[in-house]
This record gives sequence, structure tokens and C-alpha cells, in this order.
Amino acid sequence: MIHSTAKVGKNVIIGEHVVIEKDVVIGNDVAIGHHVVIKEGTIIGDGVSVADFTLLGKFPFTNNNMARKPSKNLSPLFIYNDVKIGSHNVIYRGVTLSEGVLTGDLASIRENVTAGKNTIIGRNAMVENNTQIGENVTIQTGSYVTADMVIEDDVFIGPCFSSSNDKYMGKGNEQLKGPVLKKGSKIGNNASLLPDVVIGEKAIVGAGAVVTKDVEEKITVVGSPARPMTKD
Amino acid sequence: MIHSTAKVGKNVIIGEHVVIEKDVVIGNDVAIGHHVVIKEGTIIGDGVSVADFTLLGKFPFTNNNMARKPSKNLSPLFIYNDVKIGSHNVIYRGVTLSEGVLTGDLASIRENVTAGKNTIIGRNAMVENNTQIGENVTIQTGSYVTADMVIEDDVFIGPCFSSSNDKYMGKGNEQLKGPVLKKGSKIGNNASLLPDVVIGEKAIVGAGAVVTKDVEEKITVVGSPARPMTKD
Amino acid sequence: MIHSTAKVGKNVIIGEHVVIEKDVVIGNDVAIGHHVVIKEGTIIGDGVSVADFTLLGKFPFTNNNMARKPSKNLSPLFIYNDVKIGSHNVIYRGVTLSEGVLTGDLASIRENVTAGKNTIIGRNAMVENNTQIGENVTIQTGSYVTADMVIEDDVFIGPCFSSSNDKYMGKGNEQLKGPVLKKGSKIGNNASLLPDVVIGEKAIVGAGAVVTKDVEEKITVVGSPARPMTKD
Repeated sequence: MIHSTAKVGKNVIIGEHVVIEKDVVIGNDVAIGHHVVIKEGTIIGDGVSVADFTLLGKFPFTNNNMARKPSKNLSPLFIYNDVKIGSHNVIYRGVTLSEGVLTGDLASIRENVTAGKNTIIGRNAMVENNTQIGENVTIQTGSYVTADMVIEDDVFIGPCFSSSNDKYMGKGNEQLKGPVLKKGSKIGNNASLLPDVVIGEKAIVGAGAVVTKDVEEKITVVGSPARPMTKD
Repeated sequence: MIHSTAKVGKNVIIGEHVVIEKDVVIGNDVAIGHHVVIKEGTIIGDGVSVADFTLLGKFPFTNNNMARKPSKNLSPLFIYNDVKIGSHNVIYRGVTLSEGVLTGDLASIRENVTAGKNTIIGRNAMVENNTQIGENVTIQTGSYVTADMVIEDDVFIGPCFSSSNDKYMGKGNEQLKGPVLKKGSKIGNNASLLPDVVIGEKAIVGAGAVVTKDVEEKITVVGSPARPMTKD
Repeated sequence: MIHSTAKVGKNVIIGEHVVIEKDVVIGNDVAIGHHVVIKEGTIIGDGVSVADFTLLGKFPFTNNNMARKPSKNLSPLFIYNDVKIGSHNVIYRGVTLSEGVLTGDLASIRENVTAGKNTIIGRNAMVENNTQIGENVTIQTGSYVTADMVIEDDVFIGPCFSSSNDKYMGKGNEQLKGPVLKKGSKIGNNASLLPDVVIGEKAIVGAGAVVTKDVEEKITVVGSPARPMTKD
């Protein structure tokens, strides 16, 4: 079903059982897989690929128990040229994916996230709302990027990374502060970051480390709790 | 496809390419997204939302190698009023979701699980069979809740939590015992719980902690293995 | 939609909104759920079950930033007799699933992976490309199996396992080396393995351990970094 108000460019391949809702705009040379759903107002550039079973432009919902309600006035989902989106993705309204971004299968990205050019958001990766991701960032498979994070350019995040933004674990009205990963920092697989920590430029967090306080630039930390690596 | 024996209430919105099998009952004021599959016998209350690509009422299957076979006689999937279910969920037959429950996208919940009122089961969260979850519980994104757990009311589980129920790792006939999380306990992100541990009322498990034995009420534990937090 | 060149055996059940592309071969006594997509050339044996929303035979794609490009000439996806595949799976071209394999819901398996007889690949498990998995292996829920791993027969991997294959975290041209899990080794939940470590036969890695170097056969290691377990 392609809504009559949707605009579809030239040389666009559309699979079986696709749903394209009203006011969607699709550029040229785009490939849409089978069973894809594109919600109203989504804007897709040229040369984009979207694999099967992916949902683009989802509106958030909430229940009475959530600490923070999603914002009501979200801009459309913008997908720039040459983005490649895996299968079974869930990408919300209010997201911007810049040129050359790639997402793995089963990735999900919530509202008000931006991802810079050529950034990779891996298989099963989860990116929560209001997080800003720079250019040439790699977020590997199964990583959890919490809300309100800042991830600068050239950051590398290994698989199964975990982060949190809530010091008081669900008590309610306190301000949530996600970690900040400065330019070129690298995070090993299955590392955990506590709320509000800052990882300095080109710093390295070892695999499985539990980072409870800021890490200075170019320093390598390991262990639980994470401490600067020593020579012995 | 809506089977002729299914009963659908008033003011129900049903998306494209939806499959509703025999003997399904859907209440009033329900919104069913595109590509949703509702298996036979599922019962859905009033005011429920189900997002796209979600599978409700799945029957379990097994192979020769599984330690324990799924039970054959499962009650239907019951979804009470005002439940909100994310996209790409897999929720099995034999599950009960109480009023006001919310599930994130890509969540999965196996047979014989109950979730109490207003509980949140986060994005990509996995809940195994025979686990009982109380009211006002929050299970955050990417958490793994093993089989045979008991999670009491008001528990908060941070993202990427991991649990296990099998001391002997797949050897076979031993009894499986999931952890017990007592009322109001809080678990930090990426913490690991071993089989059969009990986390006391209002106890706190720090991020990344590996909990190998019981934690008493109101105590905070951190580290690997987890130990009570000291002042220095 | 079943392509005219597809061959479908006897006693095959096919759900609603299924897409079967060209040159697919399906054996006898097969059950295909609703909304399943089977890409061109996929070969499915007798007695196979495929649950809803699953994508079989996906071709990989890439972006400019990926360290290693997927191989161009992939053999078809081969699914042998009596395999059971969960819902919302993504299984790539170039994969071989031997007789009796079971995959959980939301599992994904990339190109050039083989899984031996009766192996279980759990719910939400992620298996990267070029990994060889033996017979009677259990990979539990939410585990991340990196590329280029070797997992021998009878290995047990607990839930939320994490592994990595890239010592230099995305720098580029170095050789990637996944861990090796020898026959009968057991890995606890949420353990992390660094690149290139070898876990010996019947060795045991404790829950939450961070394994930075090889583990000898029959030894048990725990902690971060992992060390042999002592008696006290």
C-alpha cells in the first residue's frame, strides 16, 4: 500500500507487502525490501537501501510509570543519501541519519537522535532518545547507548557495551545525564559506563571494565572498578 | 486476514497485512499496527496498542537437546486493558500482561510469565518462561531475565542486566533456580546474577557487579565478585 | 508470493503474506509461518519449521567505513532436516544449519557460519560471519559470538556472553582473530572474552569473568581479569 500523497523518485525498487503512509518522500535509486513499513512524513534521500521487516518513522508511546514522557512535536525521520538500513530495524520519528550511515539488522534508534556521516550502528544495537552521535563512529553489535549521551567523531564502541544515565535508578525527578565519549575514544566489549562519566579524547576503556568516574585523555583503564592500566 | 471466529470490539484500528487467527478476542478502542500476527485464542482487553511486526500468542517449540521441554497445555495469552506493546515483539501463549504494562520494541516474553500492573519490560528485553514479575517493576533495555525468577513489586533493573538459573551449565537433570529480587531492590546496568541468589528488599546491586551470593536487605554491593560497598 | 521457479515439497504449510523468491527449494513436511521471507536460492530440507517474520538467505551489504568487506560469492543458505527456526530471525546467505539445529526468536546469523547437528542458537543471539560452530553446542539467550570464532562440539555458552576479535578496535588492517572454545568448555553468563584467547577442553569460565589470556583445559577461571579459582 503506497498512500496517494507519498512521493517516490525514479528507479526505486519496492518489495512485497510494503506500507508507505501519507506524505512520505523517497528519492531516486532507492531499494525498499519486503514487508517494510514507512510511517507518515518520513523523508528518504537518494541511493538508500532499507532491508526487510524494517519500521521507519515510529511515533513513541508511553505509560504512566515512565520517568520522562516523550516529546510530542517531533520532526520527521530524515534519512540522507546512501544510508543502508538493516532488516527488522525500528527507527523513530525525530531521528536524523546522515549520508553513508549503516545500521545492522535488529537495530533500534529512538526519537531525537542524530548520527553523523558514515557512522555504523551495529546489529541489535539500541540507541535511546536525545543522543548525539558524530561522524565515523562505530557502535558494534548488541551495544546499548543510553539516552542523553554525546558520542563525538571517530569513537569506537566494541560489542555489548552498556551505559546508563540514571544515578538514582528510577526514583523519578532527578536530571538524567548520559556519559560523554570524546573524539577518538575506544571502548572495549561488554564495558559498562555509569551515568555522567566523561571518557577523554583517545582514551581507551578495556573489555569488561566498569567505569565509575571520568577517564582523562589518552589514558587506558581496565577492571572493575576501572583503574588506569599499570605496566606489570 | 481476520478469521471468522475472531471477535473484534468497537473502535478498533487494524493495520495492513495483519493476521488474526481463530478464536482471538479483541476489546474496544484497540490499535493494531501493520503486519501484526495474533495467534489463535489470544485475548486482548480494551484500550490496548500493539505496534507493527509483533507476534502475539506464539506456541513454543523445542529440539532434542533442550534440558527442559515446554509445557504442552498452555492457557491463552491474556493482555489486559491499556497495555502498550512495542514493535517486533514476540509474546508467547501462557503469558499474562496486567493493566498498564508497557513493552519496548523487540522485547520477547516466553510462556508462563506474568507481569503485574504498570510494569515496563524494556526494548530488546528477554524474559524466559515461568518467571513471575510484580507491579510497577521496570526492566530496562536489553536485560535478560532468566526462567524461574521471581521479581517482586517496585523492583528496578537497569539496562543489560544478566541472570542465570543453571549452576551446572547445561548438564541436564538438576533443578533450575532463578534469582529472586525482593520488593524495591535495584540492579545497576550490566550486573550479572548467578543462579538462586536472593537480593533483599531495597538492596542495591551496583553497575557491572557479579553477584555470587545472597544480598541482605538495604545493603549495596559492588564489584566482581560483589561485596558490600565500603566508605572509602 | 511464491516465485514460479521455486520448488515446494509435499505437505508444506505456508502462512499468510509469505515471500518465496526464485530458485528456492523447500522439502517435505515443512511449516513456514506468516510473513516469512525466503531469499533466492535458499535450500530447506524436510521437517523444518520457520516461525513468523523470519528472513532467510539475506545478502550482506556494507558501507565505506567497514574494516572488512563481505565476500561476494556466497553459497546458498542450506537448512538441513528437522531444523527449527524462531520468529524474527535474520539468517544470511552462506550459512549452513545442520540437522536438528534450533534457533530462538530474534536470533541473527551472518554469512559463512556453519552450525553442527542439534546445536542451539538462543533467543536474540548474534553470530557474526566466518564462525564455525560444532555439534551439540548451546549458545544461550542474548549471546554475542564474534566473527572468526571456532566453537567446538559440546560447548555451553551461558546467556549474554560477549566476545571480540579486534585487538586494535577498528584501526583497520590488522588480522582479526576470534576466540577459540575447545570441546566441552563452559562459559558463564555475561562473561567477556578478548580477541584470540583459547579456552581449553572442559575448562570453565565463571559468570561475569573477563578473560584476557588463554585458559588451560579443565581449569576454572573467575573474576576481572579472570584468574584460576582458588579454594578459599
